[in-house]
Parts: sequence; C-alpha cells; structure tokens
Amino acid sequence: MTDRLVLDYTGMLAAGIGDHGIAQASLDVAATRFRDVHAAVARQRTAGKLGFLELTDQSDVAERIRSFADGVGQAFDTIVVLGIGGSALGTIALQRALLRPFWNELDDEERDYYPRLYVLDNVDPTTIGPLFDRLDPGRTLFNVISKSGATAETMAQFLIARARLMESLDDAYRRHFIFTTDPEHGVLRQLAEGEAIPTFSVPPNVGGRFSVLSAVGLLPAALVGIDIEAMLRGAAAMDERCRNPDLLQNPAGLFAALQHLAHFERNAPIHVVMPYSDRLAGIADWFRQLWAESLGKRLDRAGAEVFRGPTPVSALGATDQHSQMQLYMEGPFDKTITFLAARERPFDLVIPEAYPDVDALAYLGGHSLGGLLDAERDATRSALSRSGRMNMTIEVARVDAEAIGQILMMFQIATVYAGELYGIDPLDQPGVELGKVLTYGLMGRKGYAPGDEGRAADRRICS
Amino acid sequence: MTDRLVLDYTGMLAAGIGDHGIAQASLDVAATRFRDVHAAVARQRTAGKLGFLELTDQSDVAERIRSFADGVGQAFDTIVVLGIGGSALGTIALQRALLRPFWNELDDEERDYYPRLYVLDNVDPTTIGPLFDRLDPGRTLFNVISKSGATAETMAQFLIARARLMESLDDAYRRHFIFTTDPEHGVLRQLAEGEAIPTFSVPPNVGGRFSVLSAVGLLPAALVGIDIEAMLRGAAAMDERCRNPDLLQNPAGLFAALQHLAHFERNAPIHVVMPYSDRLAGIADWFRQLWAESLGKRLDRAGAEVFRGPTPVSALGATDQHSQMQLYMEGPFDKTITFLAARERPFDLVIPEAYPDVDALAYLGGHSLGGLLDAERDATRSALSRSGRMNMTIEVARVDAEAIGQILMMFQIATVYAGELYGIDPLDQPGVELGKVLTYGLMGRKGYAPGDEGRAADRRICS
Repeated sequence: MTDRLVLDYTGMLAAGIGDHGIAQASLDVAATRFRDVHAAVARQRTAGKLGFLELTDQSDVAERIRSFADGVGQAFDTIVVLGIGGSALGTIALQRALLRPFWNELDDEERDYYPRLYVLDNVDPTTIGPLFDRLDPGRTLFNVISKSGATAETMAQFLIARARLMESLDDAYRRHFIFTTDPEHGVLRQLAEGEAIPTFSVPPNVGGRFSVLSAVGLLPAALVGIDIEAMLRGAAAMDERCRNPDLLQNPAGLFAALQHLAHFERNAPIHVVMPYSDRLAGIADWFRQLWAESLGKRLDRAGAEVFRGPTPVSALGATDQHSQMQLYMEGPFDKTITFLAARERPFDLVIPEAYPDVDALAYLGGHSLGGLLDAERDATRSALSRSGRMNMTIEVARVDAEAIGQILMMFQIATVYAGELYGIDPLDQPGVELGKVLTYGLMGRKGYAPGDEGRAADRRICS
Repeated sequence: MTDRLVLDYTGMLAAGIGDHGIAQASLDVAATRFRDVHAAVARQRTAGKLGFLELTDQSDVAERIRSFADGVGQAFDTIVVLGIGGSALGTIALQRALLRPFWNELDDEERDYYPRLYVLDNVDPTTIGPLFDRLDPGRTLFNVISKSGATAETMAQFLIARARLMESLDDAYRRHFIFTTDPEHGVLRQLAEGEAIPTFSVPPNVGGRFSVLSAVGLLPAALVGIDIEAMLRGAAAMDERCRNPDLLQNPAGLFAALQHLAHFERNAPIHVVMPYSDRLAGIADWFRQLWAESLGKRLDRAGAEVFRGPTPVSALGATDQHSQMQLYMEGPFDKTITFLAARERPFDLVIPEAYPDVDALAYLGGHSLGGLLDAERDATRSALSRSGRMNMTIEVARVDAEAIGQILMMFQIATVYAGELYGIDPLDQPGVELGKVLTYGLMGRKGYAPGDEGRAADRRICS
C-alpha cells in the first residue's frame, strides 16, 4: 500500500516550537517505555479483549452486509438509524466523509439511487416529529442499533417507529426493521427472535465506541454505497503497521505517547482535533467520544482514585480560525492541536481573477479554493509553532474509504495505548451508570427509586 | 414580560454539591466586587464602546431589513450567506433554533414560501462546488458578510459566486448580491458603491462576534421569516435586567462571576455549554466563539503577559451523555457544565405502550419523548451534582425568537463582564493576525513575505 497515512509531529517537540514543546529526552524515555505498553496491548489482543482489532478479518460478515445491501436493502429509499453515542457517531462520520455533500437533499439520480440516510442520535421531539411526518413508511428501513438492547433513547425511538409503521403497514412492519445488537443477550435480540426481525451482531468483545467497523457502522455504510471492503483494508493495513514496537514507526503509538507527554509533562490536558476538510469533521466528533469515554476515569488499574483524563475538543479549519484560534494562539499553554488533512481533492474550484487594482482581492485570483484552504492550514500550523503551541498533522492522500479505515483504526489503537499510559481501563464506562439509574427512577421503571431531590427549598435561582 | 430566562446555579455552589463547589464566602466577595465591574461596564457603554448594546434600539434598521425581506427578498428561493466566524455563527444558531428542522429539505409550501438558507462558513471546494452546481443563479441571493471587507475566505467565495452569476446573468449579477459591511471603509463598501450593490451596515463599534443582532444576523433571519422584532425585544429586556448592579439579580453577571470563580478558585478552566434541545445546539457553538475569542488573551489590561482564558466546549444532551458524560462524571474536576433548556415544546410525541412484560421497554410507554429528554437532563444534573461537578441551568419558557434574544444578549453581556473579571480586553483579537499574515504570504499577496519555513530538513515524520 503506497498511500499511507503520514503523521508529522515536528510541532510537538521542543526542537520544533521551543520550550513549551516536549523534550527529546522525554520522547526517548517514552520510546523505551513503549515496548512494554506495546507488549501489554499485544497480550490483551491475544486474550481476546480487543475485539475491534478482529473486525478487519471478518470477510464473511462484510459479505453478508454487502448481500443485504445489494438485495433487500435496495427496496428502500430512506434509511433511518436509531442509535446514540457509539451507535451513531461512526455512521455520521462515514456519511460526512464518504457521501456527496448535501446527500439527503439530492434526488434519486444524484444519489445513484442509493437511499437517504438519517441518524437519529437524540430524543428531541421537535426533530423526530417532523422527520417521521415526512417519511414514507413503505420505503423506509429502520436500523435499530443498541448493543445492550436497552438504551432508553433508542428504545423510545423504536417504540415510536414501530407504532408508526404498524399504522400503515400492519404486520409487514417487521420488514422495515433490522436490528444490530448482541448476538445472544438483550431485549432487541429477544424481540428479533419473537417477531422474526433480521439482525446483525455486535461481537461481545467490541464496545460501542470501538464498533464503527462492525455491523454497527458497516451496515448503514453499505446501504448507501460506501466501499466497506476498502475501509476494512485500510484499517487492516493500519493494524499491521501498529504491530511495530518501535514507537517512532508506530503512528498510533506516537499519537498516544505524544498526547500523554503533552498532558503530564507539558500540562496540556486539552486535546483538539481540527480537520482542515469539511468531510473529515465527523471524524473529530467520533474521536471526541473515543478519547473522552475511554480515558476519563475515576479509578486507575489498581483501584485508586485518580480522576484522570484529557478533554478532547473537535474543531474545524479554516472555520474555527475565526472562532477558536485567538484562544489557541494566546490563551494558556494547555492544549495540543492535531490537524487532519488530505493531500488531494476529488475536484477543486479556481478563484477567478478580478479587480486587479484591489489589493484585498487581486492576490486571490488564479489560486484554487483548495489551495487557499491548504495555505490557511500551513499558516495556522506555522503561527501556532512560532507561538510555542504544540501541534501535529495527520495527513492522508485523499478522503476515501481506505484512508478513513486507516484513520479510524489509528485512533482506536491509540486509545488503547493511551489507556496503558494513563494507567486506566479504556474499555469500561462506569461513570454513566448513575445518570441511567436516576433516569429510570424518574421514568418510573420497576425496581428503581423514584427521583426525589428534596432540594426545592434550597435551590439558588435568578429569575 | 413574564417569560423571563431563569438561571439555576444551585449546582455551582459548595452548598449544592460539596467541597468541589464554590464557597458562599467567595460568591459574597464576588457580589461586592461586582458593583465595580458593573460600573466599569456601564462606563464603557456610555463611552460608546459596547455597540452591541445599542442594537436593540435601532428600530429603523429593523424596519429597513424587514422591508427588504418583504420586498425584493421574496424574489429568491435560496439565500446563501458568504461569511465566516462572527458573520456565520449567529445565523447558523438562529436557523437551527427558529426554523423548522430539515428546512432546506422542505418544499416551498412546507417552508411557507420562505427561501432555503445556506451558510458557507468554510472554503472547502468539496462542499462549495456541489452546492454551487445545484443553485439556480436566477433565484439565489448571496449575502456577503464581512465587516472589514477583506476576509480571505469570504472574498474568495464572493469572487467565485460573482463569476458564476455573471456567466448566466451578465450585468444583472448585481441584483443577486447584498453586502453587509462597514458603513464607510473596506473593499466591500468600495465595490458596492462602484457596482451599485445594495448594502447593510455593521456599526463600527460592533465586533464580529457581537454582531448577531445587527444586520449581520437580522437580515438572513428576516429573509427566512424569523420574527426579528421579537428577538430584539427579548434582547432589550435582558439588557434592562442586566443593568442591575446586584449580582444575584443579574443573570449575565452571575454567569460571568460563577464561571470566573470556578476557573480561578476551583481550578476549572473548561466551560461546557450543553443544551438539552436540538434547536439550541447552535447557540452553544455561537457561544464558543464569543467566550474563546473574547477571553483568550496573552496580555492583560496593563500589558503584562498572562496567557489567560477559559476553554469553551459545546456539547448536546442527551446525545453527549453517550459520549462525554463519562469524562464529566469521573475525570478531573476541571469543568463547569451549563445546561440550556426550554420548559415547553411546540409539540411532543407520546411513546406508545407496548411489551408490558419486557422491563426495558414497558416503563417508557405512556411517557412523552420530551418527558424522557427532560428526565435525562434532570438525572444528569443530579448525577453531576452528587459527584461534586459544578453545573448550572439556563432555562427559557420555550424556544422562540424572544427567548433567543434573551439568551444571546445574556451571553454577550456576560462576556464583557468576564473581560473585566479576567482583566483582559474582551473586544480585540490580536492573536489571529499572524496566521492571516502568513496566509497572505503563502498566497502571494503584495507586500507580504512569501512563506518559507526552511524546516523541511528537520521535520519529524512517521510515514
């Protein structure tokens, strides 16, 4: 494979940006230590704990997904994903990266007769009501995605969708659902069996935020014509590349180690991912879950309270130069900025030459719009570096399925390495339980205490 | 006005959440000190430095905007805003809050014959190319917004749009532009005069990020049928309310003082704004610019290097419970969470009762979807408070133009107060200059040194 992802970390090092950067000696120590990190992760892989690494090797699943998409999937002109968090963010990222812009506004021919795709990742009735009113039930396929099969938001959406479908289709509603869930357990599995609804499985050892390359992400992707095999190929190539215990040759290792050094040696706990590409914007949001939910932990591996975790932030270039760059350039030295970019574009626009006597316009003429975007990225990187602000650039040849596979796999592996470096378990999420339990209580679920804050009297309010 | 915005700050205080909260004594000191802050801001107002406060009193401008929208504005079925940063974020927020969801996908009747609205806030050709290809030039109005009239991204878009219009409309292209810019200076003003293009002005004392209630935000809003008078009414009421020097009665003062105390007394420099409403999501992104660009500063008022500034983060409930909440609950105590919410909804959906024997579904039946969203917000607030995480809630009666006016004005005034508290000038943005200069150099603009990093040899790359 020639079109390998490239990571330029010049701007993370003191040699590149001065005293606010990471010392070479620190990187050397990290490289030595990385052999242990790498070995620990290899052991987890062998023990079957890192199911997401096995997903590139499931050509039978990809084939079944492709068959479904080529067959019954073609009967629908709208796909609606009912899912939230890890069941939605990957699909949103793929949609944004690999479908034509304004996809849902295009007509059938412009979409090559692939369906529209909506991802309902919230339970706001002011969004869901109008959308459901516009759907033609007979032409809509709902992909309900929940690993546990108990996610309150997704189950509520499912109940509403089911009732709507039954109104117009009666028992045929079943043919408008496909569930993606645990292969054996949970409510969705049980319903699928009872009501003969087709399913795809999320392997039990694949957590929600690591599931984009399982049926969770692949099925919706295949249904709208994305080349899922190429994506898996890219992911496999990145996995292969990250089997290298030499930190400097391992992009996931480098990303994790540099962010970790930035956090603990340079006091920079805020990790910004800033694509210079509208199409890569969804990747930054997907990463935001991966990094936050995996690394933000109260307990370390030994059970001691540590309240650890960097805060990921997603930004977008050049847009956020006009929103966040003032802070990134002049605020506290508490951040790293990771640019994402592609070297080539499928097409570009020439900025016409006009107004030769007007300075503020003349210089633009003859350049391409993509060239302007690239210049802005280059200038921003350079300005940050000159101001001593840690930054790195992850570059792919072009935004295609194979490159996206590489990026997704790189960040996933980096997250597991980072778990080792931060000394926490990157695969659990105990902190979300309390909110769920309290929600169940407020909603009157059997076995849960009703909500009772009993604090109305001592609320502090300005009204 | 009865439907006043309510700020509940119980969760910011030690009395509400324990030791990680702000001590009552600190708030008392802040309240005393606020009288000076308030007086300083009043002086700036009197000196004419806070132009955004004067915008609620310009009924002539609103009338002219309304006339334009009612007149020639009706000739178009698509409005395209060419603008970035402060010229775009306000309009995106208003569009998301006050138009029907999926607006650009609706047909003419569903949009009440108001135009579609696209905001081009980036220069990625892979977005702009396909959009321009789909526009009917004869039915499209381009609103070019740049206060300086020199913003590279916006000027590049303008040149491309102009050439496209001239191709099919020849000299009539002029009737498809309207400029929003400085009343006297800059390139757009000059072109408007030379080419007889109509304009609206941004008052010189209104900065880009404070311009949403000027023609910058009002014109696109009026063109798509938003009640701009109601918005200004809401803003005026909030301004009136914030003339109160009693901190506890002043919502903008309270927001600023509590975030500042959280930052410096409780070591929480990350300020999350998390609407529990799809429609308020754009407000969080708009706030993100306001807070970051205003408060992230290298120099304090006395010219000393301080590298100050909180980092704003935008999140969305309930969605981000499944992405960021693990970190907010268990990570470092370095954040505040500000919920935005509305008490009433224009409509709701009932979750149908089904599967009485399936625990994970039965409890949902009979509740409304909005009720679920509210329960999740309540549960999340409660879970954060129990875990000692600082949080507050800003609640409006409903998402309408008047409420949005209140919210926008509250955050703008809070930003000016925060400038006083942080000891920096919230109205400038010197940190973005270097990036601009370097971009000009790379693009070959006259008088700027060509880009020359001269570092190819010592780049650190993993490829």
